Amino acid sequence: MGEFDLIRRYFDPVAREQGHPDLRLALGDDCAILRVPPGRDLVFSMDTLVEGVHFPRAYPAERLAWRALAAAASDLAAMGADPVCFTLALTIPRSEERWLAAFAQGLSEAARSFGLALAGGDTTRGPLTVTLQVQGTVPQDQALRRDGAAVGDLIVVSGTLGDAAAALAYLDERSPSEDARALLARYHRPVPRLALGQALRGIASAAIDVSDGLGADLQHLLSRSGVGACLDLSQLPLSPALRRCRGPEASHLAWCGGDDYELCVTLPETGWHRLAPAVRAQLTPIGRVESKPGLRFQEGTPEPDGSAGFDHFRSEDG
Amino acid sequence: MGEFDLIRRYFDPVAREQGHPDLRLALGDDCAILRVPPGRDLVFSMDTLVEGVHFPRAYPAERLAWRALAAAASDLAAMGADPVCFTLALTIPRSEERWLAAFAQGLSEAARSFGLALAGGDTTRGPLTVTLQVQGTVPQDQALRRDGAAVGDLIVVSGTLGDAAAALAYLDERSPSEDARALLARYHRPVPRLALGQALRGIASAAIDVSDGLGADLQHLLSRSGVGACLDLSQLPLSPALRRCRGPEASHLAWCGGDDYELCVTLPETGWHRLAPAVRAQLTPIGRVESKPGLRFQEGTPEPDGSAGFDHFRSEDG
Repeated sequence: MGEFDLIRRYFDPVAREQGHPDLRLALGDDCAILRVPPGRDLVFSMDTLVEGVHFPRAYPAERLAWRALAAAASDLAAMGADPVCFTLALTIPRSEERWLAAFAQGLSEAARSFGLALAGGDTTRGPLTVTLQVQGTVPQDQALRRDGAAVGDLIVVSGTLGDAAAALAYLDERSPSEDARALLARYHRPVPRLALGQALRGIASAAIDVSDGLGADLQHLLSRSGVGACLDLSQLPLSPALRRCRGPEASHLAWCGGDDYELCVTLPETGWHRLAPAVRAQLTPIGRVESKPGLRFQEGTPEPDGSAGFDHFRSEDG
Repeated sequence: MGEFDLIRRYFDPVAREQGHPDLRLALGDDCAILRVPPGRDLVFSMDTLVEGVHFPRAYPAERLAWRALAAAASDLAAMGADPVCFTLALTIPRSEERWLAAFAQGLSEAARSFGLALAGGDTTRGPLTVTLQVQGTVPQDQALRRDGAAVGDLIVVSGTLGDAAAALAYLDERSPSEDARALLARYHRPVPRLALGQALRGIASAAIDVSDGLGADLQHLLSRSGVGACLDLSQLPLSPALRRCRGPEASHLAWCGGDDYELCVTLPETGWHRLAPAVRAQLTPIGRVESKPGLRFQEGTPEPDGSAGFDHFRSEDG
């Protein structure tokens, strides 16, 4: 099957199933056409997943598609954006119908779930790699950025942390326990916090998504804002499954583990009280922004190597 | 060197050197932020180049960066768009400083040359692959599309065709002739026809860029428009270097060869006469749109296998 037939057969239906009114032209031309509504800004982010680096070899195609789109959409959540569309650069060793059908199935589910229309992309032959660009919009000047954290702001995180990292130990388990299955679900089927990011617009002073590990991601946010923080790691939100499966290690995983796709947000105390109770219920305060750069720990100091997250090149070069 | 240091060292300068007023935030956050001016549409396209498939192994990094951005920007040219910005997903086997410095150098030259600001991206470890998304804007509803060709329209192509395909034979030549050097320049340093695309807005009825070969690309345009064409292949514009180097084969290369990044455009005869002489001088009429689907040839019928262009999967799957 040629490239064009292949695109048509598997990806046209994905584009048809989930459209978006702002997307005026998708697939089949040199470019897609998007009309950003007046008074809104476009925000966009690109993410790559490489086989053997970001996901295991022979990873099921359906899960791969979901994870790739979820990871990319998480960047939209961190900006407080309303999702619009995405492009897909799919590099595959050969055009295997079964694999492609499963990939399209996972992509379609994720696209519908996150409200992202497939706008275009490129299909090439080579080592399995998935690159996605997601695009969303926000009211002008209301995007949540990393550089707005102010001294005295609360630091809060959403959901629970460390589950996806803990799941790595169970990837090859043939009959995982119920707790292990709960952790595995966080790894295989992450859910970007899109609605939460939108609810934080106009209230949060800064935000970042936790993809490389809270320790690493929070430091990006603080250094972009030119501030530091004092944290109480005993407050890190841990799932019951994580506590039961990993005991004393749980807190370390929550601090260092990546792939949770939760949000880490700063906001003034007044903002915290203005949040709807249903929004506040998804967030846990873990510390406060301070003027002095760097991190201080009230309780639960992380292990010496615990401040670094996932860095694609560090293991080799540095 | 870690991923973040690497990005900072090599790509921050590229982003600083060539900005764009519509790009409100680039690099260093979860998303970039773009404000599309009122009355304009955003157009965007994604392209992947894989080592050993789209460019030879050990291809110089500087040339790779230029070619990748030129190929992507050519899709903006085909839409008649004004370039704005691009994102880069770079997958590399290891972070080699010399390679990265050369890649950044080529990228920077191309970015300045095409007026595209680096907005963001992702750097990962894996088999060498470059994915780029380019973004531009056009006045609302004025994007050149593939689906507007009308019966009776002239079919014209820009520049000369077949040069880049002919260059493949000279890639390993140690002291190529002057003619071969001219062909090699077309392959190594293609120039997207951005100004030409813009000049054709409001006049062309349809457009596509010639990346897979004129035969294949023209057929995409015609089939999207639901029409056919009668062509005179003796009119194909051939460079003197191509004629001299490849003689009777020249016309075949111009019909089937990819990577020229010229434009193939349809327009009504009245539009042809409205074009500024300097624009018309870049274009060669090669045929006319007809209602009957498919291609007819007045003169210079291509060889039987000559109607297909570059299709990433065809060689394997038929």
